[in-house]
Amino acid sequence: LRSKLPKVGTTIFSVMSALASEKNAVNLGQGFPDFDCDPTLVELVAGAMKSGFNQYPPMPGVPALRQAIAGKIEHLYGHRYDPATEITVTAGATQGLLTAIMCTVHPGDEVIVIEPAYDSYVPAIELAGGTPVLVQMELDANGYSVPWHKIAAAVNARTRMILVNTPHNPTGTVLTATDIQALADIVRGTDILILADEVYEHMIYDGARHESICRHPELAARAFIVSSFGKTYHVTGWKIGYVAAPAALSAEFRKVHQYSVFTVNTAVQHGIANYMQNPAPYLELPAFYQRKRDLFRAGLENSRFKLLPADGTYFICVDYSAISSLSEADFAIWLTSEIGVAAIPVSAFYQSPRESGIVRFCFAKQDQTLQQALQRLATI
Amino acid sequence: LRSKLPKVGTTIFSVMSALASEKNAVNLGQGFPDFDCDPTLVELVAGAMKSGFNQYPPMPGVPALRQAIAGKIEHLYGHRYDPATEITVTAGATQGLLTAIMCTVHPGDEVIVIEPAYDSYVPAIELAGGTPVLVQMELDANGYSVPWHKIAAAVNARTRMILVNTPHNPTGTVLTATDIQALADIVRGTDILILADEVYEHMIYDGARHESICRHPELAARAFIVSSFGKTYHVTGWKIGYVAAPAALSAEFRKVHQYSVFTVNTAVQHGIANYMQNPAPYLELPAFYQRKRDLFRAGLENSRFKLLPADGTYFICVDYSAISSLSEADFAIWLTSEIGVAAIPVSAFYQSPRESGIVRFCFAKQDQTLQQALQRLATI
Ligand SMILES: CSCCC(=O)C(=O)O
Ligand SMILES: CSCCC(=O)C(=O)O
Repeated sequence: LRSKLPKVGTTIFSVMSALASEKNAVNLGQGFPDFDCDPTLVELVAGAMKSGFNQYPPMPGVPALRQAIAGKIEHLYGHRYDPATEITVTAGATQGLLTAIMCTVHPGDEVIVIEPAYDSYVPAIELAGGTPVLVQMELDANGYSVPWHKIAAAVNARTRMILVNTPHNPTGTVLTATDIQALADIVRGTDILILADEVYEHMIYDGARHESICRHPELAARAFIVSSFGKTYHVTGWKIGYVAAPAALSAEFRKVHQYSVFTVNTAVQHGIANYMQNPAPYLELPAFYQRKRDLFRAGLENSRFKLLPADGTYFICVDYSAISSLSEADFAIWLTSEIGVAAIPVSAFYQSPRESGIVRFCFAKQDQTLQQALQRLATI
Repeated sequence: LRSKLPKVGTTIFSVMSALASEKNAVNLGQGFPDFDCDPTLVELVAGAMKSGFNQYPPMPGVPALRQAIAGKIEHLYGHRYDPATEITVTAGATQGLLTAIMCTVHPGDEVIVIEPAYDSYVPAIELAGGTPVLVQMELDANGYSVPWHKIAAAVNARTRMILVNTPHNPTGTVLTATDIQALADIVRGTDILILADEVYEHMIYDGARHESICRHPELAARAFIVSSFGKTYHVTGWKIGYVAAPAALSAEFRKVHQYSVFTVNTAVQHGIANYMQNPAPYLELPAFYQRKRDLFRAGLENSRFKLLPADGTYFICVDYSAISSLSEADFAIWLTSEIGVAAIPVSAFYQSPRESGIVRFCFAKQDQTLQQALQRLATI
């Protein structure tokens, strides 16, 4: 048996969650909240099931949900997608990412990926027969940033797609209007597509604005925008998200989507469509998570960890080089086993071994969980 | 934009369901029940959501569900799968099929597909870079059958996989022990894998036995078995199924699965795990659907349709050549628009145009729905 993904093992997120539970550690590794979602949302989904929404919905998604998504995007980012032809509900963001890649990347095509990168991007490109072209973010006293000149230099006639992620997992970096301008300059006059992973779109702090790729018409015209209800509504186990893209791209997306999962749980779609009528839950998200970020940062300020900026996402990276010279993976294991706090090594987001002495914590946790972790981390 | 699936349009099932609802026709096209599932099942899932099962489950599925699946398979078919390493919960059978193909079929590999074939098989093979090799079932007075000598003749050094589907959609054919023997003879001594679509495993009539590929150790050792809770529990909109395969195959399956959807709705998994404690719902399914099949057959007996055998699945094929010389697609459209009963043209299950004067009806409907359809069909 010859593997299609010879380099792939179990995702780091599963590995660290399993170790955390074995060691009874506070799990600040895998990105999911340890608190429950709004009970109203559960009621809406349960109500939809009880009303009999248990058979196939339309393949691209329940119309009311696609309308609610289009309405939200227009309201927040000023871009109008046609829900009939430009929005597709997906079985989570992961399926949206893989499908967007599978439907456009042909064998031999190159896809530019910015590292550190979420661990599904490279295998997805490889499954499509494409070649990932890796460009590393730069790290200085101000944190991580994208070296656009290196991306420009990586473009060639085989470049099919550039994958961007903002707010960025694991670094918490948020692309600015200047970044977007640089990206637009690179792709102008080419037929390069953009795949924008925006699953943390509502987790953005200090009054910054989310520069959704769809705010920028010349980019929106060539982009797939991927988002996740699991992240936004604290239901990572529901596996539902969406992909917005111009009609021509969405048509190709749907061809692959219909043979990937065909469609997504009907009652969950109806429940979320209803819940979205009230924008408060996502409008309040920045304040909700900023408070947690600040609580966690304040607790670490007098530690020997050096905090990196965290402008978006529910992750924060810390430099532990003053504490240990272990590799990131070994430090994360040590931290989990000996200190009782699970983290994710940032090296897991690179294809080639790269050690920066940095691990990622997830602060999407109850205050008491964060406090317990802080107490343990203070002992180092 | 160069399509990855240039021959693919919207699935025939979506097209005919849309036409049925536009024309207000009785929809006997797309395969889904028009009655609701057991309310107990809904309660179990709603209860799991309310208990807070709303975050990521383990990537391969909730352990209790994998155990219940392994227990059912052992009980019914006598084969023991290890739930830890050999069962993976999928976002429906479609995702299981695509993932099994993506994780084993390399560019240039051939996959033998028996036509008529469910419409996702060929695109899935093409997305993996494989070459579908099509062998047609034979049709005589006894109905459809698989010409194993033609499959044997289609095997060569590039053959990676043979895809079988029993009970078979759309023909209702059920593979017998003799068929399975023929298949075993073909693959013995080769490294050819088997992908067994068994989503209709519990819909089998007249006391016949489901020859699950996993009953046969020499086949089970090289097979992916795909099943669907949507079909079994009347919840096609829930998009949940599973794939059982030996550990080495499951390991490759999970590598791709984790980057395809990562995992499946947590509360739905817990609800089904609980529901499976009682085997009655699937044990009673043959009698439940056989009654509907017989009702529908009896109603058509005096019509000008010629009934084909329907030994399994919830579909029945009928020959309309005494009624019309329209193509199957045109006849299905006419039947939907003018008579008010939607059907699926069997030609949609072939890659090359093939007209046999046959359409497929789905009898997973309330008795009154079937009666209304029969009344309309009697007018032809
Ligand atoms: C699919 S598990 C990973 C969750 C996540 O987004 C992360 O931890 O980065
Ligand atoms: C995924 S829609 C098709 C449903 C089905 O299995 C069929 O009608 O054959």
